[in-house]
Amino acid sequence: MTVSKVVATDFAATFDKLADIGCDSPTRGYRRLAWTEEDRAAREWFAGQAKKRKLGYERDRNGNLWAWWGDPADGDALVLGSHLDTVPRGGAYDGALGVVAGFVAVSEAQRRGLKPERPVAVAAFADEEGGRFGIPTFGSRLLVGAIDPSEVLDRTDQEGIRLADALKADGLEPESLGHDKELLDQIGGVVELHVEQGRGLVDLAAPLGVASGIWPHGRWRLTLRGEANHAGTTRLDDRHDPTLVLAEAILAARSAAARLGAVATIGRVHIDPGSINSVPGAVDAWLDARASHDVTLDELVESVAAETRLAGLRNDVSTELVCESRSPEVDFDLDLRIRLKEVLRGHELPTPDVPTAAGHDAGVLASRVPAAALFVRNPTGKSHTPAESASDEDCALGCAVLAELVAEWMCD
Amino acid sequence: MTVSKVVATDFAATFDKLADIGCDSPTRGYRRLAWTEEDRAAREWFAGQAKKRKLGYERDRNGNLWAWWGDPADGDALVLGSHLDTVPRGGAYDGALGVVAGFVAVSEAQRRGLKPERPVAVAAFADEEGGRFGIPTFGSRLLVGAIDPSEVLDRTDQEGIRLADALKADGLEPESLGHDKELLDQIGGVVELHVEQGRGLVDLAAPLGVASGIWPHGRWRLTLRGEANHAGTTRLDDRHDPTLVLAEAILAARSAAARLGAVATIGRVHIDPGSINSVPGAVDAWLDARASHDVTLDELVESVAAETRLAGLRNDVSTELVCESRSPEVDFDLDLRIRLKEVLRGHELPTPDVPTAAGHDAGVLASRVPAAALFVRNPTGKSHTPAESASDEDCALGCAVLAELVAEWMCD
Repeated sequence: MTVSKVVATDFAATFDKLADIGCDSPTRGYRRLAWTEEDRAAREWFAGQAKKRKLGYERDRNGNLWAWWGDPADGDALVLGSHLDTVPRGGAYDGALGVVAGFVAVSEAQRRGLKPERPVAVAAFADEEGGRFGIPTFGSRLLVGAIDPSEVLDRTDQEGIRLADALKADGLEPESLGHDKELLDQIGGVVELHVEQGRGLVDLAAPLGVASGIWPHGRWRLTLRGEANHAGTTRLDDRHDPTLVLAEAILAARSAAARLGAVATIGRVHIDPGSINSVPGAVDAWLDARASHDVTLDELVESVAAETRLAGLRNDVSTELVCESRSPEVDFDLDLRIRLKEVLRGHELPTPDVPTAAGHDAGVLASRVPAAALFVRNPTGKSHTPAESASDEDCALGCAVLAELVAEWMCD
Repeated sequence: MTVSKVVATDFAATFDKLADIGCDSPTRGYRRLAWTEEDRAAREWFAGQAKKRKLGYERDRNGNLWAWWGDPADGDALVLGSHLDTVPRGGAYDGALGVVAGFVAVSEAQRRGLKPERPVAVAAFADEEGGRFGIPTFGSRLLVGAIDPSEVLDRTDQEGIRLADALKADGLEPESLGHDKELLDQIGGVVELHVEQGRGLVDLAAPLGVASGIWPHGRWRLTLRGEANHAGTTRLDDRHDPTLVLAEAILAARSAAARLGAVATIGRVHIDPGSINSVPGAVDAWLDARASHDVTLDELVESVAAETRLAGLRNDVSTELVCESRSPEVDFDLDLRIRLKEVLRGHELPTPDVPTAAGHDAGVLASRVPAAALFVRNPTGKSHTPAESASDEDCALGCAVLAELVAEWMCD
């Protein structure tokens, strides 16, 4: 498939403007956490892109952004979207690429003189990473009614700011959050283009791949309570040191994941009081775990819980492992997957199925509307780091595929 | 020994006023970190106590507080002192008790109509705990020249404030810090009364004990560098996860300490980026280790370093363990220890020798002037926690012993 020069140029120009926002220039790391100044700057970029293409800009009551081509009230809309937020020190492509590709695809369809018989939207879903309040796919889960807002509004970020206050400061009404049936009813399909987060496509020498599904995954909070004491004068036998239990939990998570062909990570830990010369009294840690099937994920988490409980008993430290969020196994919509593969095959591109262990807004929306995801090859295979990558050629190719999908959607 | 009612009352009244500063009332936990508002309030309390007893108040250029009875220029002064800062969420007695006892002892000597033939001082040494900048026994080590100020002034606290700026904001001149020979030359002996930080005296049924010495102890910084990546999509074999190495370091420190009859603690950990859905790229952790002899401490730290290095190699994570501070074995001054024991024996009290693994200002000063420490029984045996304790009777008894020491010092 040859990508027209205008698509390639449009992609580069559109992406570059977004890539200025929240970038730490020495490391090329990105930090666009939800409801911050960087997030607002990205929103302004989104509104500007919508205006440039004469699309109707809207921010829904859950903080998701929409740029409508055609009238949403006509229904059966094709939504091309992803997210604009990043993890702290993330890469340039994760999320951003899918939103940029949506705009580039709409431009291409407009250039071909198509009319939106069925509406098309570019969307940016709010706080996909959960990098600030620990609630991933926040905007899409609110949209489908998978989060009860009252259960999360009192959560605080690392500076102690309440989610409700952060939302208010960013112009949203906390009391208006939640399930938006009217909006969902207007959607006929969602396609999320996303940089691949592993090396599957690199190994297959394929520039693009169609997501088959998403592994079930979730977050668990590990609460360990011992007793703070003096690090010099407290005999080992008199200690109730929760870091010893944490250490065993970290190793247990790794070994259970290895045994089950799954992945498990403890990436955030809070130790109290956190002074060098005190035996800590309390540890909070978060387990991220993902496996190919729900039953395997259950086995992984139960195994970590059991090992942690044993270590807690040995050290006289209380332990608790509580699920904070869990996403079930997702199979993407067969019809959309076939449409994407047909476009790829029509251009003599490979059409690999790619499973993933990463959550996506498209995975959340799949519970309510037909949804699919198209992955772009990532030469380094790295993700959630500035080393994440994608070539301009592969990105432009992804834009061109979305443009064909839009064209077909309109001619159906 | 019977403590006069006036000493008991003076102790309670003096201690209670200090105990209002930096106290979190629900938990009864104390937070008086160096160079903060709470620290300034404690300084005002100190100045007020000095004024009440007509003592000459002085803050030296290292931030240590002095209340002089008699003229320091006469030399051969007896110094009764400890510290007013606490660890975050510390107890009421650690440090504070020794300063209060100094003031109560001076009052009692004044009531007996004694004159300061040789000067006596009550002292509060600055930032003993190092709870904010990680530099314990800061004031006393500067005084004796054991810290090079230029090596620490750029350190930052957890909010990123530089030590030099914190000192300036608190009225000190960073360029004037350091060895104070003139002041040291005026000191004939230092006695630090301190709540015991373990259960030695409880087990011996002794209200007071004389410190024999301090275990050698220190702090080491553990630097682990791996690679940040996506917690869902990075295969276990592709990870360079420094938390796995941290876990092994925590367990290695514990097992080496158990083998060597020592203690070791990892009480502060920083994980970067610290987002739940990222494999961390970097971990910094601090090891606090103490043992009965220098050679045992060396063996402990070398063992932790070796185990950590092995775990680093297994996980392709770089490791480094660097000493940040180290205090050698301290033997307290025999003459002062004998004087304290004679006072105890004169009142038919037990005279146990108590070793300790905790650092003290008296331990630092012992390198330059005769120094000793008197421990007060701690019924819970706990330390660096609000559960730390001491009975009013035992505290008043400690004050009375110091008062006798002052009386003898003057009559020598």
